[in-house]
Amino acid sequence: MATTAGAQPETTTLQEQAKRHLWMHFTRMGAYVDADVPIIVRADGCYVWDEHGKRYFDGLSALFCCNLGHGRVDIAQAGADQAKELDFYSTWSYAHPRAIELAAKIASLAPGDLNRVFFTSGGGEAVESALKLARQYHKLTGNPNKTKVIAREVAYHGTPMGALSATGITPMRVPFEPLTPGGCHVPNTNVYRLPEGVPVESLAEAVRDRILFEGPETVSAVIMEPVQNAGGTFTPPEGYFQRVREICDEFGVLMISDEVICSWGRLGTWFGAQRYDYLPDLITTAKGITGAIAPMGALIASDKVAAPFMEGTETFLHGFTFAGHPVAAAIALATIDAYENERVLEHVRANEAGLRGMLESLRDIPIVGDVRGAGYFQSIELVKDRDTKETFDDDEAETLLRGYLSGALYEHGLICRADDRGDPVIQLSPPLIAGPEHFEEIEGVLRPVLEEGSRRLGLA
Amino acid sequence: MATTAGAQPETTTLQEQAKRHLWMHFTRMGAYVDADVPIIVRADGCYVWDEHGKRYFDGLSALFCCNLGHGRVDIAQAGADQAKELDFYSTWSYAHPRAIELAAKIASLAPGDLNRVFFTSGGGEAVESALKLARQYHKLTGNPNKTKVIAREVAYHGTPMGALSATGITPMRVPFEPLTPGGCHVPNTNVYRLPEGVPVESLAEAVRDRILFEGPETVSAVIMEPVQNAGGTFTPPEGYFQRVREICDEFGVLMISDEVICSWGRLGTWFGAQRYDYLPDLITTAKGITGAIAPMGALIASDKVAAPFMEGTETFLHGFTFAGHPVAAAIALATIDAYENERVLEHVRANEAGLRGMLESLRDIPIVGDVRGAGYFQSIELVKDRDTKETFDDDEAETLLRGYLSGALYEHGLICRADDRGDPVIQLSPPLIAGPEHFEEIEGVLRPVLEEGSRRLGLA
Repeated sequence: MATTAGAQPETTTLQEQAKRHLWMHFTRMGAYVDADVPIIVRADGCYVWDEHGKRYFDGLSALFCCNLGHGRVDIAQAGADQAKELDFYSTWSYAHPRAIELAAKIASLAPGDLNRVFFTSGGGEAVESALKLARQYHKLTGNPNKTKVIAREVAYHGTPMGALSATGITPMRVPFEPLTPGGCHVPNTNVYRLPEGVPVESLAEAVRDRILFEGPETVSAVIMEPVQNAGGTFTPPEGYFQRVREICDEFGVLMISDEVICSWGRLGTWFGAQRYDYLPDLITTAKGITGAIAPMGALIASDKVAAPFMEGTETFLHGFTFAGHPVAAAIALATIDAYENERVLEHVRANEAGLRGMLESLRDIPIVGDVRGAGYFQSIELVKDRDTKETFDDDEAETLLRGYLSGALYEHGLICRADDRGDPVIQLSPPLIAGPEHFEEIEGVLRPVLEEGSRRLGLA
Repeated sequence: MATTAGAQPETTTLQEQAKRHLWMHFTRMGAYVDADVPIIVRADGCYVWDEHGKRYFDGLSALFCCNLGHGRVDIAQAGADQAKELDFYSTWSYAHPRAIELAAKIASLAPGDLNRVFFTSGGGEAVESALKLARQYHKLTGNPNKTKVIAREVAYHGTPMGALSATGITPMRVPFEPLTPGGCHVPNTNVYRLPEGVPVESLAEAVRDRILFEGPETVSAVIMEPVQNAGGTFTPPEGYFQRVREICDEFGVLMISDEVICSWGRLGTWFGAQRYDYLPDLITTAKGITGAIAPMGALIASDKVAAPFMEGTETFLHGFTFAGHPVAAAIALATIDAYENERVLEHVRANEAGLRGMLESLRDIPIVGDVRGAGYFQSIELVKDRDTKETFDDDEAETLLRGYLSGALYEHGLICRADDRGDPVIQLSPPLIAGPEHFEEIEGVLRPVLEEGSRRLGLA
């Protein structure tokens, strides 16, 4: 029996260890051969601090997660207290009180008859579960060929291979081909770039056209975020989701609302579907469910979709060891309590106009082409020419985003996302506790940096 | 803006809420229309308690997770303490101290040059990451057609669609077809049922034959558990993994050791590959890494596999929001400290013969056909005839396992797995802190229940 390990722990600095041993996600690691890895060491409220003691406004809520801000020691302690009672038990054939209570609580907040909760450890697993459930649901109800999923271009639905087939970002798909069969894509609701003469109604009709093209008997589900993140917070045109719901009903296609970002107050409502007043068959959620103090996600199913699995011997042969984790569930229950008791959703609804107004005030800067979003989930699209909406070529985008903006925003103390998965955007998604004083602080960074960006491109 | 929720929280019992709202994993929910859901409310050491106050020996370590037993308040508190400092930050483009330290620690314990750690929130995501990484690695190194994965029949590698293509359990695959292309399966190391005249060496050669059949230029990776869980702890024949390693090297195929169960002392070593003295290119792990006090998993990559991604602009465009979670990483560091300071691996190595001996002592019971496993990871295969090794037909297996054994073992206060994903087995995987007194207690349940099972089949 060989028990010798490969090497002894190294007595090196955090920087050296990070460069040698940590593989950061979605990260061009080569960028850190010579540069330092940014190391975040502390967080409190809307702020985080790096290893040098420098403070940053967390304008992305740690990837849309920390809705209550950082440092909620009370909620973390609820998790540790739960561990004293029951540290871990799975939901494979067993239940435990916190998973049950959380399932009931989620069902009480979710719209319509979305009453059945299948837990996961995160958003990707929730989407994966939704797509698998949709396929088995159709097989059980006499439509075994309904296996395809229709998603939208540039949409991000996660990275496991099933979810990836729905994700509409080409560079994230290509290295991993061949993907799970059945991913089909339609235009997103980028009305800023809707070609002239194309009616906005065509965006929902594209779903119907695609179902007809694929063959309705082959289409399992449509998956959409209430507000599409990648590409820059594309909101739905008036009536869009109502029409998609009609189309799904027409062809027996399940409607999945991917709310990994858009639930838990991000749009001022418990679930994004409530903000836009539609009723999906399945909702996927994660992130804000625990404020990220513990990994957790969930798939919420309607009674209709759950029904074939709740009687007889049929089983959804699917699961994840850590799903419904007692500690994570206790943290989620405490987080939801905080959303309620601290009137966080009301705060978002009362203040989103202030956040949006601040961003709108930047429209005088030459590279600010569009401002869009909903709730505390907003983007600025950057353009070369505001009148023609001309965007940057790849080199210009690289120079502007990676070469200047990302670094400059960070240096000025603002963490947000300079994203080029679609056209270049700056994404802002502050903790839901942020208010006017924080919006002013954000503006104090965005304005000079975007103005300098404009100057560097010779636009001002 | 519609903010009305679907229903108000229900003031009902836990049982009613569980039946109405919780979707348990891998669970035939119809079984609980009339029966009560088993609700586990408390855990301490090697024991858990149900809602009626009844105590059970946790003979499965909560799905191979709670290696240190339950109720490690000190380790849970290390997580809550971390949350005071930094509750959450992602590893997307950023790092934080606990993820870095944990990556370095894991690298120091892992065999050979497996020095680079990509975190996940669980085992399925770790396997998913390994399979995606293998594909992109080959595309980057001039072998774009190397996309297939060879796994073993009846092996469980997880449920996301990529991992599912490797999972070799037919009923878990069929409802979700079409799967991710490229999953190929070879015989597992079930030497108990190796047909007469077939040399044991053929088991490793089957991998070579399959690579040749598929075309070596199409095969990306081989994935295997050190001891295969599903089917009942199939251990490798002498020299098996050494030969598989040679075959992988011959054809430029990556060798993935799926150690979601077999790492962190389960086999008496840090990693299962160390017990059997082979060096894979990738290791997947989860479960015991935190003792399940927080969800976490990891993919550990060799320097060779990581190299093409560590320079220039190439990026592994893959990730999970919660991966490397600071709280989970703090808990993992405390858990690994406990494994070391409490000499848990030594305890397993000193006591595994006692556990195994107890199980071997049951061989006089007519339905006990085989006893096999390694470390604290053992199984008993049940048969109708010990001489012919005849197994049960589906009805008999249903009657014996679901109709009697599962219930009887639970009623007698022992949680273990009566599994029929392959031939029927009883799986035992106690917390690594268990000792002779616990083995005696387990025997006190297994013997009468298996004897009664034999009688019910008219075998005694």
